[in-house]
Amino acid sequence: MKFMSYAKDRARGLAVETDEGFRGLPVSDPRFPGNLKVLIAEDRLTEGAEILADGAPIDPDAVTVLPPIPDPEKILCIGLNYRDHAEEAGMALPEYPAMFTRFNSTLIGHGQGLLRPRESEQFDYEAELAIIIGKGGRHIDEDRALNHVAGYSIFNDASLRDYQMRSGQWTPGKNFDATGPFGPCFVAASALPPGCAGLRLQARLNGETVQDGNVDDMVFPPARIVSIASQIMTLKPGDVIITGTPAGVGMGRNPKLWMKAGDTVEIEIDGLGILRNPVADAPV
Amino acid sequence: MKFMSYAKDRARGLAVETDEGFRGLPVSDPRFPGNLKVLIAEDRLTEGAEILADGAPIDPDAVTVLPPIPDPEKILCIGLNYRDHAEEAGMALPEYPAMFTRFNSTLIGHGQGLLRPRESEQFDYEAELAIIIGKGGRHIDEDRALNHVAGYSIFNDASLRDYQMRSGQWTPGKNFDATGPFGPCFVAASALPPGCAGLRLQARLNGETVQDGNVDDMVFPPARIVSIASQIMTLKPGDVIITGTPAGVGMGRNPKLWMKAGDTVEIEIDGLGILRNPVADAPV
Repeated sequence: MKFMSYAKDRARGLAVETDEGFRGLPVSDPRFPGNLKVLIAEDRLTEGAEILADGAPIDPDAVTVLPPIPDPEKILCIGLNYRDHAEEAGMALPEYPAMFTRFNSTLIGHGQGLLRPRESEQFDYEAELAIIIGKGGRHIDEDRALNHVAGYSIFNDASLRDYQMRSGQWTPGKNFDATGPFGPCFVAASALPPGCAGLRLQARLNGETVQDGNVDDMVFPPARIVSIASQIMTLKPGDVIITGTPAGVGMGRNPKLWMKAGDTVEIEIDGLGILRNPVADAPV
Repeated sequence: MKFMSYAKDRARGLAVETDEGFRGLPVSDPRFPGNLKVLIAEDRLTEGAEILADGAPIDPDAVTVLPPIPDPEKILCIGLNYRDHAEEAGMALPEYPAMFTRFNSTLIGHGQGLLRPRESEQFDYEAELAIIIGKGGRHIDEDRALNHVAGYSIFNDASLRDYQMRSGQWTPGKNFDATGPFGPCFVAASALPPGCAGLRLQARLNGETVQDGNVDDMVFPPARIVSIASQIMTLKPGDVIITGTPAGVGMGRNPKLWMKAGDTVEIEIDGLGILRNPVADAPV
């Protein structure tokens, strides 16, 4: 089951992939089953998919694709979670996950402009797997943690490196407006290998592959991340955890490779699709 | 103008301080002017106060006091913002503010139990001034930043020190459930000195003063913090920025002083009141 949140003529809707492409319903339709966060929270993804499949065809190129969940209660981010990326960043492999967060104001959907702020030119891409929590909980054991995952998506954890490193805390470099592409779709966990094991993830800048990793190379795999996060906070349906990036980021290159206006960046993960965004200078 | 968000018999309400104590209205009352975030966003604090003053008397000791804004869109936190605290923490004085964030799941109101999680005993207090954004904006100049501040409150940025220091990123130690006392009230900026200049802030543990600082000793004062934050993100009405703590935290003492079940911790700031919470062990 693959869901796409969208807007058309300023009206929001939700679509599901069928054999004949996406079909969906606007929020205003009496049949609308609830947005994705609601379907996840009420464990009604299958029912929702069936209802949406009776809706009108939705051409992803003719609508505004929104982040699958535009308003998660939490966006928790894990850093340095691939051995090769920790090496290229010149940082020690973590014994405990490096955690930071994003505000919802950073989120943009597939196809929307990824905005370089005027404050920095060190604008870097990061291909990441996004976990979307289903059943909430606290103190979730690792061996049952995947039961709490509703599904997965793709995230580009785009970073302003000078702001990220300016104090010891990475938050500023990760929270500029419109620097968090998320999508294009939400894919139910049932349609993917457990914990996305073995899935390849790649980043391409203007068509050239710049990151090429595999979920199997995570230091802390999805089940462990969910368990560790739940030791700290009560996870809730629709919470998003982004899980770190493999080697190949622009900061790790010589010369550095930064995103700039006119570029196109794509993040692809097996089974999850391609998250593509044009890069532009922020208007203000 | 001093506002208090509360719940009574499971119904939420908002109260305002009058010459005869607090008076307020439940959300269900047809006269209810809107919650505090709405009043701030619509620049209707004065009108809201007048309407609430016609409501019933509200005894703060007979209701559940809620965080003034229980669901801010952002809670941005500034670290090491007092010279003497940076020294006691053994950290260099920042040239750029150390920023991290809290999730709303950490928030509790005045009087509610401040919960020590079973994962750690290094439970520390931090007396902090909280800025509440009024008029939103991006790229706000420092010299007009205070025009974007609706008011102020008190925050206890309680921290699990081992989790804070476990990786380079402080997020885990700042985001355990129910570790963020916030309140008791929101005080409109018009009732306080500009930027809270000169206000004394103190923490008391079981009646003993353990922190005693002054807003004037901030490295980055409120106007500068608002300006710097707005270079990164669009600030919105009701966003909360907590501004760092002065010296005297438990981590900086020899022997260390940690909060434990049965303790009472109070944060007091001139003109803003006293934020008091009992410390308890988390039930799970």
